[in-house]
Amino acid sequence: MESAPSISGEKSFGLVKTNYFTFERFAFRSGRILGPVTLAYETYGTLNNKKNNAILIAHALSGSAHAAGFHTEHDQYPGWWDLYIGPGKPFDTERYFIISSNVIGGCSGSTGPSSINPETGKPFGLDFPMVTIQDMVNAQLQLLQHLGIEKLLSIAGGSMGGMQAVKWAIAYPGMVNSVIAIATSASLSAQGIALNEVGRQAIMNDPNWNNGNYYGSKGPDAGLSLARMIGHITYLSETHMHEKFGRRFQEEDLSTSSFKNAFMVESYLHYQGDKFVDRFDANSYLYISKAIDYFDLKKDYGNLHDAFADVSANFLVISFTSDWLYPSAQSKEIVQALRANGKNVMYTDIETDMGHDTFLIDYEPLKKNISNFLKREFERISKE
Amino acid sequence: MESAPSISGEKSFGLVKTNYFTFERFAFRSGRILGPVTLAYETYGTLNNKKNNAILIAHALSGSAHAAGFHTEHDQYPGWWDLYIGPGKPFDTERYFIISSNVIGGCSGSTGPSSINPETGKPFGLDFPMVTIQDMVNAQLQLLQHLGIEKLLSIAGGSMGGMQAVKWAIAYPGMVNSVIAIATSASLSAQGIALNEVGRQAIMNDPNWNNGNYYGSKGPDAGLSLARMIGHITYLSETHMHEKFGRRFQEEDLSTSSFKNAFMVESYLHYQGDKFVDRFDANSYLYISKAIDYFDLKKDYGNLHDAFADVSANFLVISFTSDWLYPSAQSKEIVQALRANGKNVMYTDIETDMGHDTFLIDYEPLKKNISNFLKREFERISKE
Repeated sequence: MESAPSISGEKSFGLVKTNYFTFERFAFRSGRILGPVTLAYETYGTLNNKKNNAILIAHALSGSAHAAGFHTEHDQYPGWWDLYIGPGKPFDTERYFIISSNVIGGCSGSTGPSSINPETGKPFGLDFPMVTIQDMVNAQLQLLQHLGIEKLLSIAGGSMGGMQAVKWAIAYPGMVNSVIAIATSASLSAQGIALNEVGRQAIMNDPNWNNGNYYGSKGPDAGLSLARMIGHITYLSETHMHEKFGRRFQEEDLSTSSFKNAFMVESYLHYQGDKFVDRFDANSYLYISKAIDYFDLKKDYGNLHDAFADVSANFLVISFTSDWLYPSAQSKEIVQALRANGKNVMYTDIETDMGHDTFLIDYEPLKKNISNFLKREFERISKE
Repeated sequence: MESAPSISGEKSFGLVKTNYFTFERFAFRSGRILGPVTLAYETYGTLNNKKNNAILIAHALSGSAHAAGFHTEHDQYPGWWDLYIGPGKPFDTERYFIISSNVIGGCSGSTGPSSINPETGKPFGLDFPMVTIQDMVNAQLQLLQHLGIEKLLSIAGGSMGGMQAVKWAIAYPGMVNSVIAIATSASLSAQGIALNEVGRQAIMNDPNWNNGNYYGSKGPDAGLSLARMIGHITYLSETHMHEKFGRRFQEEDLSTSSFKNAFMVESYLHYQGDKFVDRFDANSYLYISKAIDYFDLKKDYGNLHDAFADVSANFLVISFTSDWLYPSAQSKEIVQALRANGKNVMYTDIETDMGHDTFLIDYEPLKKNISNFLKREFERISKE
């Protein structure tokens, strides 16, 4: 699934660095208050004088602030949405000012369960407050105020990033000109919750998890790797998995009962799981996946129609026909509720075999939709 | 999903007991030879004088020989296919002689990894030979010979049971009058292999698994429970899960980070997982799930068309529209290959929201299909 554009490539964004913004006090939806709290963020492009070209990028479960470019010349891979962010790309850095931050509760520079609790001098672990999508949005609000941005041209994200984008438009309607919500949902299905739960259970079953107290010793690597393997199955479609791996063998041997990887698809999943352990914190996986489970616009606002009553942003909603984790029907539900409120919505159900992860790959129909929508929105705003 | 007909109910099969057949020597497809080997089996109904009314029932991954009736008057649940086996039921015990055995490699009375290795006096563990669907069929052949049955009226099964049924017709065409293959496949998809692998990994990640040497001490209960939870997600459809659980809460509490079950669907899965641990052996789960992965008629016979060249049985093939683990397309592939060989096939893609596990529930369209097919087949055979 991964592409690796070279840092010297024509369309590369080049070298970037992660910034850190610390604020004194943050009130979680749970009622807990922490401080100081830090958000890791990156920016690409330049904020114009009118300050009307800012776009916030919200990442999914396993993402980070590093959405584009390279941190060093030796990096093997660029940021997670580098295919979409850069000069001439849909999030065109010659035109827009892009902001990408790591969610609160995360593990890539923002305050989360692996951060030091100032009250104890030790990592929070499970003492970290429960995190919700609303908390992620509220923390991003602090960052935008720090950057002097009063209104976003757009807020864009896929999967959990789409949940944040939609929540932004509802919680702070005056600050959001438009929303790009990709492969997302107003609330996860029972099946989605179930799949998140088996991932969490894989982590919590690992004795090295130790009820969340593993910092400074060997962590629950096997459990986290397994959680990622389960996740990866859900990010791909059956068709794509079949095309990519079929039933090809890595090794076939009936004479021993080692239960090692026999099939290519098993080997691929183990590789993905093992790679993930190097960059992700198991407790963050628990917190963030639970935030996804708890997200429920229908419950929070009585019903989906009422949730969107005060929204003023224009919406681009995109789903993928082969996405079984966030099926198209869930996007359509959002679209219908917005339209019933008389809101302006563009909706496309993109025909693809690539499943949920389509938003992370080099996919022209997706690029074109985002690019056209942003151009039109920027023109509209520029006339105001 | 479970129904619990009373032992005194009108259609109950009543009390049954498990029998054990031991044979001296069994050659596995891997080349390994074991002996003695035992198969646990049950029978329901009476073999007629012509010995032409015998039906073999083949179970799925987690099944056992106990397919119908109750073992004691205090049993809470009857055998796993009690809804389908009994007087007046599709597998009508007033008309047919039903045989159901636990697969070789299993853990419900048949020889498997938890059995004592006569060479060492200790349980086999991973010293047990790798098991294939062909091995299961070959062991069942020994049992039929012991019971004096030269030809089966039918062999029926769902999921892995369907694989055995199809394999029977190919391997021993002269012994099989008809096949009832439900929700099955000529080879599991890459996605199916991936899902089996994360289940196995859940077991092998459990430190109590101890490379398969856990007999006599605490076994990998948490791992086996998690494997079962993963399995259960795949046995239900998204729609059915939604109808059954939706996003209903067991407990909602943002104030603590316990990561206990918040949603009903999580609680249900944990219940299923915990219940499974009481009746199933983790090593058997590894062996049997791997047998499913390795099953591949296309590979074994060059292609699916050639696999069915010598089959003489009539087929009833049934798939379920909401089954995403063994999707309808995989059944259609079997049907097409059989028809291209000029074989007699009835095929029904049953409209249902209940997913893969539809074959285990009280589902009239399925009952009617099986019942009618068997009646016609029995009439045909009786005229010979």
